[in-house]
Amino acid sequence: MGKMLRFLVAAVALAVSAGVMIADPLPPSSLIATASSLGQSALGDPSAFNFVESLTTEIGQRLAGTEAHRRAVAWAESKLTAAGFENVHSEPFTLTAWIRGAESAEIVGPVPQHLVVTALGGSVATDANGIEAEISLFRTYDDLLAAAPGSLNGKIAVVTQRMVRAQDGSGYGAANPIRRRGPSEAAKRGAVAYLLRSLGTDNHRLPHTGALSYEDSAQRIPAAALAVPDADQLERLAAQGPVRIRLLLTPTVRESAPSWNVVGEIKGGARPDEIVLVGGHLDSWDLGTGATDDGAGVAIVFGAARLIARLPQRPSRTIRVVLFGAEEMNFSGAAYAKAHEGETGKIVVAGEADFGARNVYSVQLPSGAATNDFGRTLDRIIAPLGANLDRRPALGGGDDIRDLQTAGVPVVSLRQDGLDYFDTHHTADDTLDKIDPKQLAQAVAVWSVFTYLAAASDVDFRSLAPAVK
Amino acid sequence: MGKMLRFLVAAVALAVSAGVMIADPLPPSSLIATASSLGQSALGDPSAFNFVESLTTEIGQRLAGTEAHRRAVAWAESKLTAAGFENVHSEPFTLTAWIRGAESAEIVGPVPQHLVVTALGGSVATDANGIEAEISLFRTYDDLLAAAPGSLNGKIAVVTQRMVRAQDGSGYGAANPIRRRGPSEAAKRGAVAYLLRSLGTDNHRLPHTGALSYEDSAQRIPAAALAVPDADQLERLAAQGPVRIRLLLTPTVRESAPSWNVVGEIKGGARPDEIVLVGGHLDSWDLGTGATDDGAGVAIVFGAARLIARLPQRPSRTIRVVLFGAEEMNFSGAAYAKAHEGETGKIVVAGEADFGARNVYSVQLPSGAATNDFGRTLDRIIAPLGANLDRRPALGGGDDIRDLQTAGVPVVSLRQDGLDYFDTHHTADDTLDKIDPKQLAQAVAVWSVFTYLAAASDVDFRSLAPAVK
Repeated sequence: MGKMLRFLVAAVALAVSAGVMIADPLPPSSLIATASSLGQSALGDPSAFNFVESLTTEIGQRLAGTEAHRRAVAWAESKLTAAGFENVHSEPFTLTAWIRGAESAEIVGPVPQHLVVTALGGSVATDANGIEAEISLFRTYDDLLAAAPGSLNGKIAVVTQRMVRAQDGSGYGAANPIRRRGPSEAAKRGAVAYLLRSLGTDNHRLPHTGALSYEDSAQRIPAAALAVPDADQLERLAAQGPVRIRLLLTPTVRESAPSWNVVGEIKGGARPDEIVLVGGHLDSWDLGTGATDDGAGVAIVFGAARLIARLPQRPSRTIRVVLFGAEEMNFSGAAYAKAHEGETGKIVVAGEADFGARNVYSVQLPSGAATNDFGRTLDRIIAPLGANLDRRPALGGGDDIRDLQTAGVPVVSLRQDGLDYFDTHHTADDTLDKIDPKQLAQAVAVWSVFTYLAAASDVDFRSLAPAVK
Repeated sequence: MGKMLRFLVAAVALAVSAGVMIADPLPPSSLIATASSLGQSALGDPSAFNFVESLTTEIGQRLAGTEAHRRAVAWAESKLTAAGFENVHSEPFTLTAWIRGAESAEIVGPVPQHLVVTALGGSVATDANGIEAEISLFRTYDDLLAAAPGSLNGKIAVVTQRMVRAQDGSGYGAANPIRRRGPSEAAKRGAVAYLLRSLGTDNHRLPHTGALSYEDSAQRIPAAALAVPDADQLERLAAQGPVRIRLLLTPTVRESAPSWNVVGEIKGGARPDEIVLVGGHLDSWDLGTGATDDGAGVAIVFGAARLIARLPQRPSRTIRVVLFGAEEMNFSGAAYAKAHEGETGKIVVAGEADFGARNVYSVQLPSGAATNDFGRTLDRIIAPLGANLDRRPALGGGDDIRDLQTAGVPVVSLRQDGLDYFDTHHTADDTLDKIDPKQLAQAVAVWSVFTYLAAASDVDFRSLAPAVK
């Protein structure tokens, strides 16, 4: 008896014992064969690339809370419907929209020079004439944290710490507090504005935006990211003597702006109330056209689910595709989890594609699944696609499914090659030309295999988790 | 008798017969040994990198005719003096300065989208509110040239032809008419404005500026370069239907603005009135800090000449370093040639470093010199540096020495690897971080060897040129 057969028999026994009827179960050899051929056909399927090409060309940027995002929502509903998804609809929620204004910075002394900056999402505005002050430059964030309260009075704090390039994006996580927390940490020490070296691994004059998080107790000061070469320039100049900067930022805020999580489903054949949830986020930053963040992600889950919908026999569980509506400003995940509070027990597993357009090199499953038959079967099927199982469990699955995870939903992480993801992340450079159609198709292939196996099998990730010691 | 010895003896005989005294001639083995060790020591000399680091950090951009360029001239005089150059001075001339203003472009239909553009140098302004019109898009420049007069009435002409990547930069020469001549060609056909895909080999949202040349007989219409991804976007949208664009450019012009060619010399020991002229251009475009164009070039000739000045025995001929003052707007070469009309016969050879910061891979000498002892000796000395002689003669030596060449001065071309030069050329991305100090030092090494051999030997390039058939 093969391992997969044992796994299915066990699953059937478990399901039957739980009082669940399994209509028309696929035999294991057929399931494996279907998953394998699904992956292979995904490699030659242009649907995902066409999807992100259309989105970035016909809509372009789609910042949450703007008219452009509203257009994207209508576009997405239309695409999902045309591709044969069922139950296509959009679930509304509101957010505080943040709209970029003018943004500029100049060195006014020792000699005038232009600097390239972009406001951080959520930043307050400067005075209409801008703010001019001498800088205090810190080469690491720890140096800023070590500064005494009052030591930055009247200064513009500048942190030039470099973000580390890593395939798994771990450099971003490590550097994230510099952007999110830095503005308030600088304000607590007296700074009147805050600049950081962009959280990016490139060296282009294209700064990386991204959201900040003000602390309630600190003064809200304007905050912006410097392009990487401009941070280098300030380091060199600050080593020679005092540097004065003028910074102008005029963003505005719109309270209770509307957004939507767009949903489309492939109803399960046998157990349609059990849900395999796969998502990406439809909103993007405003500087580029949101091609890799996260046009690629929504295209991947769209492309994978679309291929499964075209199979002669649909899987027993429902596949629910969710295109989240405000990831960049951290609103859509909570909105979704709250709206679906009563349903979380029915969500078998959730995954989000939000790490660019390159190939998936490994998959992290919920705790306990890697050494189970499910993990072993998956590993065997994705090996010819150039991916493997990572035996470490997924610690998280994406910003939009964090609240689901907190509510007990098992999450999966399909890890894409992110070595150059942060070269263009959150910049004007996030455009379609950065996507390699072949690598995108490989990611669709691995997603389609995982999604199909999760939906066609009876795996219960919750039951596989080892007991917490 | 070695070839070099024969060459020197012949040169001495020639010089004596011409009535020129040669004081203290170097023996050939000493000359070759000196050139070789000069090249090797250049590989470890940080002077050129320090020079361009200081220029791009302390001055930054230095558009000809602006205060920033005036600061650069004072900076350069001070650097040349401090490095021990003689006869340091600046030779004034005037130009029509062109100053960038605001610049923006938006797609207004089918849906609003931002476009990244930059005005071409010399472009006239749009109305203060910008110009809005439907586009006519041409995928090649030939397609534009094939359009009938009147066929572009009221339209914004857009040419999206791609520039070819080539190590020797030949793609730029081929595409240059699209930028220089395109605006007038579009105007002759009725266009109200002109956009081209940047002459660049990158795919960043950083457009490439550069000068245009209006024809006297054509209407002067505003002209700008699109970032490469924006040209792609317009191609995709134009394939779907009509596209309307709003373009705003507000450059201004300053007539009779001052500039200067900065000069420093290493006076020759034996025949100081014979001149080996090596140059680069100190002016830069305004978007970046002019690191590779042409901070690197001025640094290379500075670094090479500085090493020669430090030799125990100076070469017999004078080495004149000229840092030209308005190459980008095509003013300084003519100004220099005119001011030195009476002296061109004394210029043994001229060369300009104006092709980035990478290694020199080959040298093209004036006609006839490659197969002469001079060329063979040079080839032998630069081989260990990773460069060789190109047997084809130099057709040109650089924009600033073209008028000298026309006046009969032999020119040399030290060819640098330009495979990625046009990724950042004329963009905001032309900053110090794009320079690899090791490759820059290699270029200094080859320049120092060539310059030394030309100044220490008695080679007469004019006498080597084969008779014109």
